[in-house]
Amino acid sequence: MILDGKAVSAKIIDDLKIELAKKSTKPYLAVILVGDDPASRVYVRNKKKKAEYIGVRADIFEYPANVEESVILEKIDELNDNPEVTAILVQMPLPEHISKEKVICRISPQKDVDCFTPENVGRLTIGMEPYFYPATPQGVLMLLDAYDIPIEGKHAVVIGRSNIVGKPMAQMLLRRNATVTMCHSKTENLEDIIKTADIVVSAVGKKIVRCKMVDKKSVVIDIGIYRDSNGNLTGDVDFEEVEPVVEYITPVPGGVGPMTIASLMYNIVKS
Amino acid sequence: MILDGKAVSAKIIDDLKIELAKKSTKPYLAVILVGDDPASRVYVRNKKKKAEYIGVRADIFEYPANVEESVILEKIDELNDNPEVTAILVQMPLPEHISKEKVICRISPQKDVDCFTPENVGRLTIGMEPYFYPATPQGVLMLLDAYDIPIEGKHAVVIGRSNIVGKPMAQMLLRRNATVTMCHSKTENLEDIIKTADIVVSAVGKKIVRCKMVDKKSVVIDIGIYRDSNGNLTGDVDFEEVEPVVEYITPVPGGVGPMTIASLMYNIVKS
Repeated sequence: MILDGKAVSAKIIDDLKIELAKKSTKPYLAVILVGDDPASRVYVRNKKKKAEYIGVRADIFEYPANVEESVILEKIDELNDNPEVTAILVQMPLPEHISKEKVICRISPQKDVDCFTPENVGRLTIGMEPYFYPATPQGVLMLLDAYDIPIEGKHAVVIGRSNIVGKPMAQMLLRRNATVTMCHSKTENLEDIIKTADIVVSAVGKKIVRCKMVDKKSVVIDIGIYRDSNGNLTGDVDFEEVEPVVEYITPVPGGVGPMTIASLMYNIVKS
Repeated sequence: MILDGKAVSAKIIDDLKIELAKKSTKPYLAVILVGDDPASRVYVRNKKKKAEYIGVRADIFEYPANVEESVILEKIDELNDNPEVTAILVQMPLPEHISKEKVICRISPQKDVDCFTPENVGRLTIGMEPYFYPATPQGVLMLLDAYDIPIEGKHAVVIGRSNIVGKPMAQMLLRRNATVTMCHSKTENLEDIIKTADIVVSAVGKKIVRCKMVDKKSVVIDIGIYRDSNGNLTGDVDFEEVEPVVEYITPVPGGVGPMTIASLMYNIVKS
């Protein structure tokens, strides 16, 4: 069965729009965009458009690639102090002369809708409520829940250990009582480990998951998204050969991508 | 081969004593102890004694079990603000009417030598430097390093997911490029998962690891410590049957326990 992220996402976003229409106070999203990476510009524009669709005020604050670090830090201070601003996003990547760590640590945890700050990551890890859960892993869980796919006690293998996807995905699956294995570029015998999984979550950006690694009870979540040599959007899973074998699978595109947007909108409304 | 935590710990502690003797400014450890749990009193007394042995000033601030939460929070504020105090420990468990979360969040991350605060846990998770690493997992890594046991690329299975042992152990092994599986009370097929491990770390408090789950290349780290029905100190590993089979194993007592103390002293000196 194909997990239809596009449909589930659309429903969540429309529910958020209805919910927000009833409220007298609205969230206000501030996005910081540095430099002119074309992919970043597209992402930021899409977030703003979707936020405005559900009734959220959204402003993009743009800076040239050579902006001084202190200017960005002061802007964050200003957004933190502005009581109208409820949500702050800093689009990554930042230019090399700007310290990503300093920028992340400067964001108020109460406005950190990406769950980038150590405070929120720490809360997530030790079982306290973070102010927000990170968008992509939260979106994956929303999708699993939409199809009533059980998580507790299952063995989830997470491939990739980025701070915004792989690592919080592992923590959130652990909070839902999965047994969780974290794999990455240094993992030996990756194929054998994937074979032991009930739930496979891949967030790498290259072709990893093949049909011989899964079986008819597997749940396969594909977070990787990139263009292949022919310029087509593809994911970490060989969809053609894996889809007929497994119980559940997400497509690329139309799987985790739209869920990430829905999940981010959920956080912004919560803010 | 038996990993001699007692010997390695003694060497680390003596090195710390020598290092500290050369310094003009000394750390100052403040310990908060609430109630009269006998085990807690023993732990606190041992920490103070060991700290004083290496040349650290250490004070215990004792409160009755019925102390108000606000008194503890104000004491933490005072210790945070006191520039002479470099390290703060709050002995757990606390009485039920005192919020553990509030207490933990109140400790300054710069004095949080237990690595309890969300800020430090978050830094640990996202690959930033925490001010301190949690004592037990750091002690385990010190022990593995003392015997030059490779970690990178190995599959480590961590059993138990407490905030102070299991979860940070997993994160620290991941930072050292192990593939890490987190198991716990809801894990299905625990035995099969342990069989796939190169390194087994058990922190549960009951007999879990048997000889049929390990082989001659296994590294077995036993963090569990409790008294069996005969009143003898024992761990999670059936030492008698496992020790002849595996490559490396920690005894209980004399394995991870002394390493935890050495690791905590390392943090206090660093403070």
